[in-house]
Amino acid sequence: MVCKILLCFLAVGLIYYSRYSSVVVAAFGFSIFGYIVTDYLIPRVGPSFIKIGLFGKDLSKVGKPVLPECIGAVSATVYLFIMFFYIPFIFYRYLVTVTSGGGQRDVTVDQWQQQQQHTQYSVFPHSRLSEYLSSTLCLESTILLGIADDLFDIRWRHKFFLPAVAAIPLLVVYYIDFGVTSVLVPGFVKDLISKTALFLHNKGLPVDISLRDITSIDLKGFYYIYMASMAIFCPNSINILAGINGLEVGQSIVLGFLALINDTLYMTLGSELTKNSHRFSIVLIIPFLGVSLALFKWNKWPAKVFVGDTYCYFAGMVFAVVGIQGHFAKTMLLLFIPQIINFMYSVPQLFNMVFCPRHRLPKFNETDGLLYPSRANLKENPPKSFFVPILKLLGICHLIDLEIDEKTGQLLSCSNMTIINLMLVWFGPMREDKLCNLILACQFMIGVAAIILRHFIGSIIFQHDNLWTIK
Amino acid sequence: MVCKILLCFLAVGLIYYSRYSSVVVAAFGFSIFGYIVTDYLIPRVGPSFIKIGLFGKDLSKVGKPVLPECIGAVSATVYLFIMFFYIPFIFYRYLVTVTSGGGQRDVTVDQWQQQQQHTQYSVFPHSRLSEYLSSTLCLESTILLGIADDLFDIRWRHKFFLPAVAAIPLLVVYYIDFGVTSVLVPGFVKDLISKTALFLHNKGLPVDISLRDITSIDLKGFYYIYMASMAIFCPNSINILAGINGLEVGQSIVLGFLALINDTLYMTLGSELTKNSHRFSIVLIIPFLGVSLALFKWNKWPAKVFVGDTYCYFAGMVFAVVGIQGHFAKTMLLLFIPQIINFMYSVPQLFNMVFCPRHRLPKFNETDGLLYPSRANLKENPPKSFFVPILKLLGICHLIDLEIDEKTGQLLSCSNMTIINLMLVWFGPMREDKLCNLILACQFMIGVAAIILRHFIGSIIFQHDNLWTIK
Repeated sequence: MVCKILLCFLAVGLIYYSRYSSVVVAAFGFSIFGYIVTDYLIPRVGPSFIKIGLFGKDLSKVGKPVLPECIGAVSATVYLFIMFFYIPFIFYRYLVTVTSGGGQRDVTVDQWQQQQQHTQYSVFPHSRLSEYLSSTLCLESTILLGIADDLFDIRWRHKFFLPAVAAIPLLVVYYIDFGVTSVLVPGFVKDLISKTALFLHNKGLPVDISLRDITSIDLKGFYYIYMASMAIFCPNSINILAGINGLEVGQSIVLGFLALINDTLYMTLGSELTKNSHRFSIVLIIPFLGVSLALFKWNKWPAKVFVGDTYCYFAGMVFAVVGIQGHFAKTMLLLFIPQIINFMYSVPQLFNMVFCPRHRLPKFNETDGLLYPSRANLKENPPKSFFVPILKLLGICHLIDLEIDEKTGQLLSCSNMTIINLMLVWFGPMREDKLCNLILACQFMIGVAAIILRHFIGSIIFQHDNLWTIK
Repeated sequence: MVCKILLCFLAVGLIYYSRYSSVVVAAFGFSIFGYIVTDYLIPRVGPSFIKIGLFGKDLSKVGKPVLPECIGAVSATVYLFIMFFYIPFIFYRYLVTVTSGGGQRDVTVDQWQQQQQHTQYSVFPHSRLSEYLSSTLCLESTILLGIADDLFDIRWRHKFFLPAVAAIPLLVVYYIDFGVTSVLVPGFVKDLISKTALFLHNKGLPVDISLRDITSIDLKGFYYIYMASMAIFCPNSINILAGINGLEVGQSIVLGFLALINDTLYMTLGSELTKNSHRFSIVLIIPFLGVSLALFKWNKWPAKVFVGDTYCYFAGMVFAVVGIQGHFAKTMLLLFIPQIINFMYSVPQLFNMVFCPRHRLPKFNETDGLLYPSRANLKENPPKSFFVPILKLLGICHLIDLEIDEKTGQLLSCSNMTIINLMLVWFGPMREDKLCNLILACQFMIGVAAIILRHFIGSIIFQHDNLWTIK
């Protein structure tokens, strides 16, 4: 209790002090508030959730206790209100400079010009406010659709596309507000195009010679499809890598820290141009970590609550929004490598090349309290014939645990194709919390490696990286 | 079916044509879409709502049928998505003029000045986009909290303040973006202040002589309290005048039409300055009418669905947002006169001066199918003694139906204090749909009278009205 009051004072102090320093300081203050409020609310609202039918059984525990479901909605709602209260602090310095009230519309061009000379921040950056508001709208829509999903149990093929619907405000505002749909062309592709264009032109073919100097390609409409795909991918990939206590929140927290590491690199080493994007990313992610850590406290092994699809969608969308608005969606995707691997690994079962049981969670053994890999019965449901050699190859590479009838050579069963089961295949049966920590540790290490490689390889492919330039 | 397809074509035509005319035309197009989509969804999602426990019994019908509750959430969600898709159409003309993509940040002051001379709409109005986005955020938060209320049945004293919480994004953006907190001082108050100031100054008292020329008062923080009160009042007042089929949606539709009449007056007779505010109002209200009419079709007598608190909050907030953003909150309040009367009339029961039964709905008589005024038992629960003479006075004025023991003079019972019951007291028992229509007709007539009086009296009190000026 005393500790919490002290934390509250610290938070107020940080938020107040942020006036004289940076929004990042306020982010830490709001993050602390987010943690305290979420931590306070979760045990108090749990029973109400159970009362209205939002509950689930924890299958990996003795006695299968009933836990409240969809508690991630609490974290998400607290986060939203933090985002609202945060607005004046983000734009505080603009309010100070323009004394006549930020958005005063009667400022003439002359005045504006004078102010412009006075300081670079003299006119209120409405475009950045729109950016911020549309991000918040997108997150709020995600939460709304997530709750609808948790309530109505929407079918898999429908809910897969829900995040794209929630991303509409983001894309629409991006369209009217920013509208940059060009992407850089990698150095070797640039050489290739320019040489081909020159060659064809010299042969007398009608080729646009300006292609020779191409540095970026305008993707136009495809850029929006690309952004929508990002909005579909991030939430769903977190939703798929789930099923053991603490994993959904845990991976989101690890992803958040990885994104922060990348942002910190840019804020310390990067150019002025990129700093704005990464400051925005920090502003969104630090409070996200606050509410997520409180949820993790209640969702980690042995779980007291379940997070629900709402949280998975919300968390994924935070990263999608940060990547899209900050124009580093590709770097963001690198942090999702474990999720991508998990998805690719699941494809044979998701698309029914191999039999997919209704649940692919690890099997809980009540006698030793450990989790064992769950298996798909291939005897009764044989895989597609073309996939049999691939399955056997995977078995030889130790990428699945394959059970084969020694006499007939018939496939009897295989471990279900999720990273969670694969870990159990590789490292043997273990307790739920150990398994979760192991996966989170892998996620973290792969992410750090990805960040290092991204800046190293990025410099080579594009001839320059926005962090370092190769001369 | 054919009719619906034709309507769809009409909607597409209107939205497309709006490029060459006004956003108001697009509003009609989106409104038609809103109607069709809501009308399509309601019967299809109803069973899912019942399945998860969102249902209620219609007490004023034979057999008390079970109907899905909270269906207003469908209208509200459709409205939200309309608001998202609407954005490019509202800002279309700005996108056309500035060819290099609306929010391009690299436009220099010189370029801006040149464009400024070229056309007055050359620079994208980001402040208006922020205004629009914060309104949408506020509405979305209202829906979210409304759904929470419908799900968890939040206590009356808590839920009364929920709309103020949802209005936070609106107020915050108003603060950093617009920040005008002054209100005009009525002519007679102005005279009074200036004369008093002059008088005291002449007496040698230390009075600021500039008070003599006061025309407006800066309410500062109080203006935000005033706006928050507006956000609390509108949703709750609609929520209180409820309980018979179609009344919640019906009154919202009538309010919408009244607001449109007022807007049309300004758009045709008003000055350029006020037109922007009222265009914004039209843009929000026409699609609102579309989704509400579809809901009314299903909620009107005999109701197939209930609207739930979500809709009441959402509808009230639409009017609050329009009033606040358009700076005509006072005019908007005039349209709510019936709701205000209903609230004032309810005060004795709400604050327990007179016994308040759990439900104050009219009583349904199964034999003749009519509604009768419900009554509060005053014999077992006598009113506060100071209130007895007031009750008797109300009884004499026919403002309640009072039952008095002729021998002892003791109060036995009175009709419950809601406008709905009062109508039944005045005009006798009637069928539910007649009662609803009667109340709606009253609302409409009072509203029209209020608009006429507002512009007539407004001209006298403030010496000028923004519609007509008295020379």
